[in-house]
Amino acid sequence: MKNRLINLINSKRSFLCIGLDSDINKIPNHIRDCDDPLFEFNKEIINFTCDYAVAYKLNLAFYERMGSGGWLSLEKTIDYLKSRGNFFTIADAKRGDIGNSARHYAQTFFDNLGFDAVTVNPYMGYDTVAPFLEYKEKCTILLALTSNPGANDFQMLNCCDKFLYEEVILQSSQWGSPEQIMYVMGATNPDFLAKARELVPGNFFLVPGVGAQGGDLQKVCNNGMNSECGLIVNSSRNIIYASESKDYGEKARKAAFDLQQQMMAILNNRQLLRHSR
Amino acid sequence: MKNRLINLINSKRSFLCIGLDSDINKIPNHIRDCDDPLFEFNKEIINFTCDYAVAYKLNLAFYERMGSGGWLSLEKTIDYLKSRGNFFTIADAKRGDIGNSARHYAQTFFDNLGFDAVTVNPYMGYDTVAPFLEYKEKCTILLALTSNPGANDFQMLNCCDKFLYEEVILQSSQWGSPEQIMYVMGATNPDFLAKARELVPGNFFLVPGVGAQGGDLQKVCNNGMNSECGLIVNSSRNIIYASESKDYGEKARKAAFDLQQQMMAILNNRQLLRHSR
Repeated sequence: MKNRLINLINSKRSFLCIGLDSDINKIPNHIRDCDDPLFEFNKEIINFTCDYAVAYKLNLAFYERMGSGGWLSLEKTIDYLKSRGNFFTIADAKRGDIGNSARHYAQTFFDNLGFDAVTVNPYMGYDTVAPFLEYKEKCTILLALTSNPGANDFQMLNCCDKFLYEEVILQSSQWGSPEQIMYVMGATNPDFLAKARELVPGNFFLVPGVGAQGGDLQKVCNNGMNSECGLIVNSSRNIIYASESKDYGEKARKAAFDLQQQMMAILNNRQLLRHSR
Repeated sequence: MKNRLINLINSKRSFLCIGLDSDINKIPNHIRDCDDPLFEFNKEIINFTCDYAVAYKLNLAFYERMGSGGWLSLEKTIDYLKSRGNFFTIADAKRGDIGNSARHYAQTFFDNLGFDAVTVNPYMGYDTVAPFLEYKEKCTILLALTSNPGANDFQMLNCCDKFLYEEVILQSSQWGSPEQIMYVMGATNPDFLAKARELVPGNFFLVPGVGAQGGDLQKVCNNGMNSECGLIVNSSRNIIYASESKDYGEKARKAAFDLQQQMMAILNNRQLLRHSR
């Protein structure tokens, strides 16, 4: 799975992930009354941004909010993504439960919905992550250091002379290969990205928090990149809600293009693209 | 919400929670082909056990596994529970996400589905729990020490001279009152229940792991009870899968009755019932 991601980054000259945090209360008014507003919205965003994104991330909270209908929107969106091209698809579910239940979650996101990756909360330990890792061709993205203020409450606690999130990375990196384990490392604390990179030189990081949450792309890259890029940077609100009007697709495309251009420049500067134009 | 729970415990002479971990691969063969097998199964289990249970807990993993249809089974089950009597209903969702997403999860489980309580993973800190706590009349059940082997990996780490799960309890008990915060404290480590009880004398604990996972009811009560009972003890597999045949309802009733009888004896011994017969 890691190689597929590296190939995508090379061919698109981008490491942009777009978060389809599609909120019924924030999407443009004129589509709220259609049959499946979340899917309509997602389709338009995907059509306009697919040239610049290597990954799309769907946060389950926004779909479950709509009940069984939201679940259908989710299924239709993932099918649509598959029909539109080659993307790395992430279920941002942040699940974590005992083995028996975790197995059901893994089946749901990997087998039933066909996602390439799912975010998993490590608090309950190894046996709650193992059922995801049994899918060798898929990717398990563990929460390490998140981008919200509450990250300080527990993730930054001193445990055995390191931060808890470092201990999470150290232990969990023994559970599977860098081919199948990624980490969520928030952009709002770029100084900690460098330390995490030392701990796991070969794992990809999914980095939220650039843009709306204040993270700085250049700093994130300086501190978190490795020789394979090693980062997917997520942007949600700044892209999908770039406009509240009928031009929301075009405005999303513009915002995605701007980020992709910055990313291409960084990849070029670091000579990380295999085939430069 | 806590007072409602205490009243339920008194009137039913029980602190039994039944986990509707209804697995399409484990429910009796003869109902697998009906229109909505999970709901049919749940209805039968509820009908036969409702005299002995104060709470029902629905683990979301088993419903999401069935896609949008599973979501409908969930909705129908919670509606059915409301029609059958007065129960404390728990969405065992173990969610945890940044504030914006957490708000959607809280709306989903509290407003849309109408659960009384939801389990929440504390790893991401205060702002990921706060949207649940805004529902003052509902109950937020934080994972502290879980009943699985992986609980040793992080929850039992030494953080600032205590275990991480103790630090979770200490910090989070400042976020809201014992009326609205409960903790998951696994039965497989009853020695730690006593310590947790010292930290939070007034909060209820949701205790999984009695039965199939090896926990001992008497030890759990010795170590975890307070003057209001303070415990809900969950049993799932030992009750709902007590039989694989057509008599599964009756066998579930028998298993629930046996547990309720043990619970009533403990409540009586400790003189915790307000109106003894």
